[in-house]
Amino acid sequence: MEYRIEKDTMGEVKVPAQAYWGAQTERSIENFRIARDIDKMPKEIIRAFAYLKKAAALTNLDAGVLSKEKSDLIGQVADEILDGKLADQFPLVVWQTGSGTQSNMNVNEVIAYRAHVINGGALTDKEKVLHPNDDVNKSQSSNDTFPTAMHIAAYQILAETTIPGIEKLRDTLARKSKDYMHVVKIGRTHFMDATPLTLGQEISGYVSQLNHGLKAIKNTLAHLSELALGGTAVGTGINTPPGYSENVAKHIANLTGLPFVTAENKFEALAAHDAIVEAHGALKTVAVSLMKIANDIRMLSSGPRSGIGEIHIPDNEPGSSIMPGKVNPTQCEALTMIAAQVMGNDVTIGIGGSNGHFELNVFKPVMIANFLHSARLIGEGCVSFNDKCAVGIEPITANIKKHVDNSLMLVTALNTKIGYYKAAEIAQKAHAEGTTLKEMAVKLGYLTAEEFDQWVVPENMV
Amino acid sequence: MEYRIEKDTMGEVKVPAQAYWGAQTERSIENFRIARDIDKMPKEIIRAFAYLKKAAALTNLDAGVLSKEKSDLIGQVADEILDGKLADQFPLVVWQTGSGTQSNMNVNEVIAYRAHVINGGALTDKEKVLHPNDDVNKSQSSNDTFPTAMHIAAYQILAETTIPGIEKLRDTLARKSKDYMHVVKIGRTHFMDATPLTLGQEISGYVSQLNHGLKAIKNTLAHLSELALGGTAVGTGINTPPGYSENVAKHIANLTGLPFVTAENKFEALAAHDAIVEAHGALKTVAVSLMKIANDIRMLSSGPRSGIGEIHIPDNEPGSSIMPGKVNPTQCEALTMIAAQVMGNDVTIGIGGSNGHFELNVFKPVMIANFLHSARLIGEGCVSFNDKCAVGIEPITANIKKHVDNSLMLVTALNTKIGYYKAAEIAQKAHAEGTTLKEMAVKLGYLTAEEFDQWVVPENMV
Amino acid sequence: MEYRIEKDTMGEVKVPAQAYWGAQTERSIENFRIARDIDKMPKEIIRAFAYLKKAAALTNLDAGVLSKEKSDLIGQVADEILDGKLADQFPLVVWQTGSGTQSNMNVNEVIAYRAHVINGGALTDKEKVLHPNDDVNKSQSSNDTFPTAMHIAAYQILAETTIPGIEKLRDTLARKSKDYMHVVKIGRTHFMDATPLTLGQEISGYVSQLNHGLKAIKNTLAHLSELALGGTAVGTGINTPPGYSENVAKHIANLTGLPFVTAENKFEALAAHDAIVEAHGALKTVAVSLMKIANDIRMLSSGPRSGIGEIHIPDNEPGSSIMPGKVNPTQCEALTMIAAQVMGNDVTIGIGGSNGHFELNVFKPVMIANFLHSARLIGEGCVSFNDKCAVGIEPITANIKKHVDNSLMLVTALNTKIGYYKAAEIAQKAHAEGTTLKEMAVKLGYLTAEEFDQWVVPENMV
Amino acid sequence: MEYRIEKDTMGEVKVPAQAYWGAQTERSIENFRIARDIDKMPKEIIRAFAYLKKAAALTNLDAGVLSKEKSDLIGQVADEILDGKLADQFPLVVWQTGSGTQSNMNVNEVIAYRAHVINGGALTDKEKVLHPNDDVNKSQSSNDTFPTAMHIAAYQILAETTIPGIEKLRDTLARKSKDYMHVVKIGRTHFMDATPLTLGQEISGYVSQLNHGLKAIKNTLAHLSELALGGTAVGTGINTPPGYSENVAKHIANLTGLPFVTAENKFEALAAHDAIVEAHGALKTVAVSLMKIANDIRMLSSGPRSGIGEIHIPDNEPGSSIMPGKVNPTQCEALTMIAAQVMGNDVTIGIGGSNGHFELNVFKPVMIANFLHSARLIGEGCVSFNDKCAVGIEPITANIKKHVDNSLMLVTALNTKIGYYKAAEIAQKAHAEGTTLKEMAVKLGYLTAEEFDQWVVPENMV
Repeated sequence: MEYRIEKDTMGEVKVPAQAYWGAQTERSIENFRIARDIDKMPKEIIRAFAYLKKAAALTNLDAGVLSKEKSDLIGQVADEILDGKLADQFPLVVWQTGSGTQSNMNVNEVIAYRAHVINGGALTDKEKVLHPNDDVNKSQSSNDTFPTAMHIAAYQILAETTIPGIEKLRDTLARKSKDYMHVVKIGRTHFMDATPLTLGQEISGYVSQLNHGLKAIKNTLAHLSELALGGTAVGTGINTPPGYSENVAKHIANLTGLPFVTAENKFEALAAHDAIVEAHGALKTVAVSLMKIANDIRMLSSGPRSGIGEIHIPDNEPGSSIMPGKVNPTQCEALTMIAAQVMGNDVTIGIGGSNGHFELNVFKPVMIANFLHSARLIGEGCVSFNDKCAVGIEPITANIKKHVDNSLMLVTALNTKIGYYKAAEIAQKAHAEGTTLKEMAVKLGYLTAEEFDQWVVPENMV
Repeated sequence: MEYRIEKDTMGEVKVPAQAYWGAQTERSIENFRIARDIDKMPKEIIRAFAYLKKAAALTNLDAGVLSKEKSDLIGQVADEILDGKLADQFPLVVWQTGSGTQSNMNVNEVIAYRAHVINGGALTDKEKVLHPNDDVNKSQSSNDTFPTAMHIAAYQILAETTIPGIEKLRDTLARKSKDYMHVVKIGRTHFMDATPLTLGQEISGYVSQLNHGLKAIKNTLAHLSELALGGTAVGTGINTPPGYSENVAKHIANLTGLPFVTAENKFEALAAHDAIVEAHGALKTVAVSLMKIANDIRMLSSGPRSGIGEIHIPDNEPGSSIMPGKVNPTQCEALTMIAAQVMGNDVTIGIGGSNGHFELNVFKPVMIANFLHSARLIGEGCVSFNDKCAVGIEPITANIKKHVDNSLMLVTALNTKIGYYKAAEIAQKAHAEGTTLKEMAVKLGYLTAEEFDQWVVPENMV
Repeated sequence: MEYRIEKDTMGEVKVPAQAYWGAQTERSIENFRIARDIDKMPKEIIRAFAYLKKAAALTNLDAGVLSKEKSDLIGQVADEILDGKLADQFPLVVWQTGSGTQSNMNVNEVIAYRAHVINGGALTDKEKVLHPNDDVNKSQSSNDTFPTAMHIAAYQILAETTIPGIEKLRDTLARKSKDYMHVVKIGRTHFMDATPLTLGQEISGYVSQLNHGLKAIKNTLAHLSELALGGTAVGTGINTPPGYSENVAKHIANLTGLPFVTAENKFEALAAHDAIVEAHGALKTVAVSLMKIANDIRMLSSGPRSGIGEIHIPDNEPGSSIMPGKVNPTQCEALTMIAAQVMGNDVTIGIGGSNGHFELNVFKPVMIANFLHSARLIGEGCVSFNDKCAVGIEPITANIKKHVDNSLMLVTALNTKIGYYKAAEIAQKAHAEGTTLKEMAVKLGYLTAEEFDQWVVPENMV
Repeated sequence: MEYRIEKDTMGEVKVPAQAYWGAQTERSIENFRIARDIDKMPKEIIRAFAYLKKAAALTNLDAGVLSKEKSDLIGQVADEILDGKLADQFPLVVWQTGSGTQSNMNVNEVIAYRAHVINGGALTDKEKVLHPNDDVNKSQSSNDTFPTAMHIAAYQILAETTIPGIEKLRDTLARKSKDYMHVVKIGRTHFMDATPLTLGQEISGYVSQLNHGLKAIKNTLAHLSELALGGTAVGTGINTPPGYSENVAKHIANLTGLPFVTAENKFEALAAHDAIVEAHGALKTVAVSLMKIANDIRMLSSGPRSGIGEIHIPDNEPGSSIMPGKVNPTQCEALTMIAAQVMGNDVTIGIGGSNGHFELNVFKPVMIANFLHSARLIGEGCVSFNDKCAVGIEPITANIKKHVDNSLMLVTALNTKIGYYKAAEIAQKAHAEGTTLKEMAVKLGYLTAEEFDQWVVPENMV
């Protein structure tokens, strides 16, 4: 490969000749040879940085500390990044400095050097039209840009991927709940037969879980909307012009269309990432809900002949490389695996969040990488589960009817007529002797057959 | 020990002669010999059941399905429980059925039998004035009472212990932040010297963390305020009179003074405990904050001679059994241990919450026990930390001044004057040669001594 | 309450007149008002300290640095502690200093003052026959005694409670596996019908899991057998006589009957508790196994009429306060709740273990409390599950036969005869048309009825 | 894109014309649009499958159920996969069926179709030289191949990446420990000054941690060495020739050079992945150790002027985009972020492991993906930390000397001379008055200056 020489405050570094990045990015590539093919800094963070750098340039322009020309150039490259044109210029991994400094510098360098080329310069020019630190990073520190990028990326993915994904599944389940609101089926508690409910009622519980989960996520957006930018090195805002914090937040809000504001307290915003911890707690809550829902659906569809078999879900692929004709609830499996991943990510994020020290938390990359992973898995997992499974849920009426008709727990309807103890006796003896409740009730003399038929009506028990 | 014979639907059981509990409680004692001395069902749950049983009795009375006499008796024993008079009548442990049925029956039995004694009866009477199932448990199922008790207990402990405890610590730290707002000290990022801030600013970050934590907790109260009661066995509300759900929630709200409402969807309320998962996520967020705050305080007070030593915290006890005169930051240690416990409890609760099946989650006792444990640890831990540590925080001025005056990172103030690269050169060479920034700046000819004194003023950098 | 005055290096403290403890214990009571009724320092740790103090006294005697009289007195009180006679003298909680110093001092004080009384003195005597620090704690520091007590307690509970509990359950399941080795039943993968196996084979998987779990636990005992004692304050062994470390480990091994040795590296032994982390990792592995086993058993026993219903487990208690005659798999529920608790405790222990700093880890109490909790829950949980559930497992032959005979996955036997694709066609069409495999196989002309009967024999497929 | 038509038991599918994969792989691509750019099935699993398929072909050849020609062709493509030549032919993601069936089929299809091309055929030929199910997958099921691949991949990465990485760091630290065994420095417990030790002793604790961690990992290899292959669909080994299990394990052992054996119990091997849970518990233990070590090193190197500053670590990159000249302990940060990731992955793996049901655990892909992630992060993280940080650790003698000379905890040496209480008085008064211990000791009249100099010698206290 061909190289050119780049310099930073530590000296010279060889950089691939055509790369837009510079010395600091290259040092990080050399210094961190860890999981390089699988753990790139998430693309959502790079996008967030593009918004941020453009907004900072505009704010610096407003404040009169950056020229229009420079500000425009920064914005132009930022737009290229947002258009995905420079995707191969961000080679760094999550496993770098815990402040994300090198990724901030990666963006600074790419913007500065790409701008120089746009401006007609060559990468080998010693002086460039923009300086990564003094221009692109003006009025900024990694310590406030990286947490700002974290909040931008987190808020965006929740708004654009996670919440719509959950809502899509919620809407399908709500429709299914309505469609099957009158399909009376047996209830199960402790995995044991219980009093009846309708399939629609059962599914309505899932809808309610997702609705509450959506509320839980939305409750955490206010904290995520607070941006650290303007705090610079330790939260005091050193080297920023007056009004910078408020103005840059406004520019970011404009560019993203999301309601960002400047964080009231910048010291917290650099030293802690409780907003990420809090918001991921909501994602974990949704993961817990999804585990429950997906487990139910695969158990309800179990069989086809020796399971519960009360609902049918779509057959998407041959399920076994050895058992011909087998079909499995694979979407449920993907979704429950996702739930397990999110629950583990939650621990990583909590540990990272708890280990900030003094003026800076240096678990930023691992925290945001896990956050974005979870947010995306839930969003895309819900869509996949919706499209390939939930939309196709249908009751298997014959099995549903058989189960509810056989159930001994219909006896509960008799509690208010003959008392809990006599009702228990009927159920226990019917179970022991393998008879129906009605036969046993009459045999024991606690009620007549007519009374039984009048009192024990599954449809009236839901 | 002397015994009497009690009966349930499974047959006869020997019960301690003086115990107010009956057959089902006794069976559970026999069946679950697990950690019996350390893992009792939390007392907060028993209290919650007392409110619930009284409220159910009043609601049944309103609905005309329970006599005034019976309702009064139930209320009377419930009040005794709330007064702590029957504390030794609840011997069951967390490790029982996952629906908490036996604890619900324990309360039903104690109320029924204690009422019978209050009413002039004897525990050995075959017929008692109240029946545990048909009267005390009327219009109820363990499946809706236990989750209702979970929400009552969880909401109450948050409102009475956790939130006030955090607020107390927050208020102290807010006062300290104000008191020391002008004490300029060195900042530290990556454990390395950074630009200055004031001690008050540093502490303001902790205040902001706790304020956000309080908001996070409060955001989860709405979900916790939803009560399952009225759902009975599977959520359909079988065997309840009309209007029961709304009315019983109103009675509980009246009795507790907390804004409980009936859950919109009872199927979720029995089958999932996402409200507990969600609210504990907020507790975990606070635990993460407390870990950060307590770590900072112990490191800032480290020394006395070979650490950072910038603040003094109270000396509460001899710190070492071998090193005479040693004093340690023990309150910080208790608080960080609590944080670790809460972060682990969060996983237990998540796993429990994810494993509900069909119409019932049967990890109820372990979920609520861990929740109450965390809520109490945070509340009482914050009070202890406040009273024995935070209130006594004082700056150690001499060390603070020495550190800030020595710092090479004051060079940051020169970025906007001479650019990042020259500033870096000054700092690096001063470090290498062990000189002051000023000496090196002048030596390198980048600025005059007068300019340095004018531009590099720690007080202007905060 | 009446008090007497005790003194330590910080001054005077009022102590309950009859308490054997002294000033430092009392300070800790005052300083840590956190969860005082539920989170006492585990009794296993107090027992371990009794062994340790006796062994240290014997070692000091051997080394000629403690008189025979004093050594005997220490041993005598240690024996009283081991006999449980002084159980009310250890009032401290887990939430204290992270080194456990106050609990070490609690034991030192109780031994010194109780010895003084045994020796004929009065608690109010100013000079006592033993000094808590200079005699009882001689050649020790909290920093080496507490981790030593952690290892003693951890090893003991594994050896005496956890391992025997798991073995008991393993033995029962092994017997069941043998008993039912020829009961052919349907297999289930992905919750879907699969090729057959026998009930004994299915249960043999559980036996294998527990056997591997036992091996996993035993693999960790070597690290737990290493004792920190002799490292004193920071691991250097300051203030210990020659040969102390090796000799005191021998005495502890003699007293406990367990193969303790002195830790090769005392710096690790104070500053890290990886042995606890490692051993608890094995406990978590067992918890994971138990979750699987208990889940299977409750699902296999589900029903009685609308579930899988292939095994019967004992009916231990009425299962519902509203549904008469209902019986639930309550032992499975307790065991799975225990698994969830252990999995959460694992996180707490990992966080604690990761947060040691310099020469000391100060998460000792929370780590050992969680460890002992898990070890006990698994041990006692397995015994309860064994005695009240596993011993009563029995096949329900009718259901087993029905399920296996109906299964479409018997078609797998045809793969090697007619190929996977034709076999799949048979299964899919039989499923779609609701016929038997045999009917469809013949109808499609892929084989004769005789061939089917000869090739598709469930008993030959296991 | 151009397509060709492929068929499976469910019908026709359009596949990219040049792809070696077939219908089932393509279905999975369509069905699981989740995190497709970041969560590919790990390459280590694909490699493991290549070993496995080759070994199975050889075993089938040995057993006379597969022709030499077919076996050779399978082996030839397997070798191409091992050589990395077909890396772009495995497009599936982790989020698929929980049995990994589609990835097994992906390998089956690629081997079958690539073999056909090698053999001179065209991808569009209807009949191909090998059938994915009947030939490549002969005597196998996804249910036994995927867990086999899990164990192969897990064992290999531990042996080739994780263990060597840890050993490399361990060796460097052992060398540093030896080099600095006589550099006396202050000890710190509770972050507070304590008695001295040497820098070499301090580092020896880290060495001991890593040595124990290596033992912990190695203890888990035996369980990982057990292979499921031969269990086929549910563990019974249906459709395998006699002796298959043992022989295929031997072939895999030969091909990989690792001591694999056939699992004694195939039912466990399919239905549970406790070996993965157990082995990851050891990885988590190492993560916990690394967090401690990296934290210590960054705190010991903190400063340069206002921290502890007792060791120097290499300056690898400019540390701040705003603070000129700042250098940070970035390798420590990457390593502690890795530790946090591994600790979270441990929870994901535990949850996955606990959720197997009946004859199959269907959290296989998420479990192994997290395992391989952790194993690689630890291995590569240790190498990075070693090469860029640990090798450059050097004592900063001046600071070390200043700290140890000032320490009040040297007073501990007087315990055995004048007793703990008088020693405490000296330390407390010296602290209060800001004097040296010697001055205060003499002033209080407890010993002479000569005695002090003789008794209090840091070098004698280590």
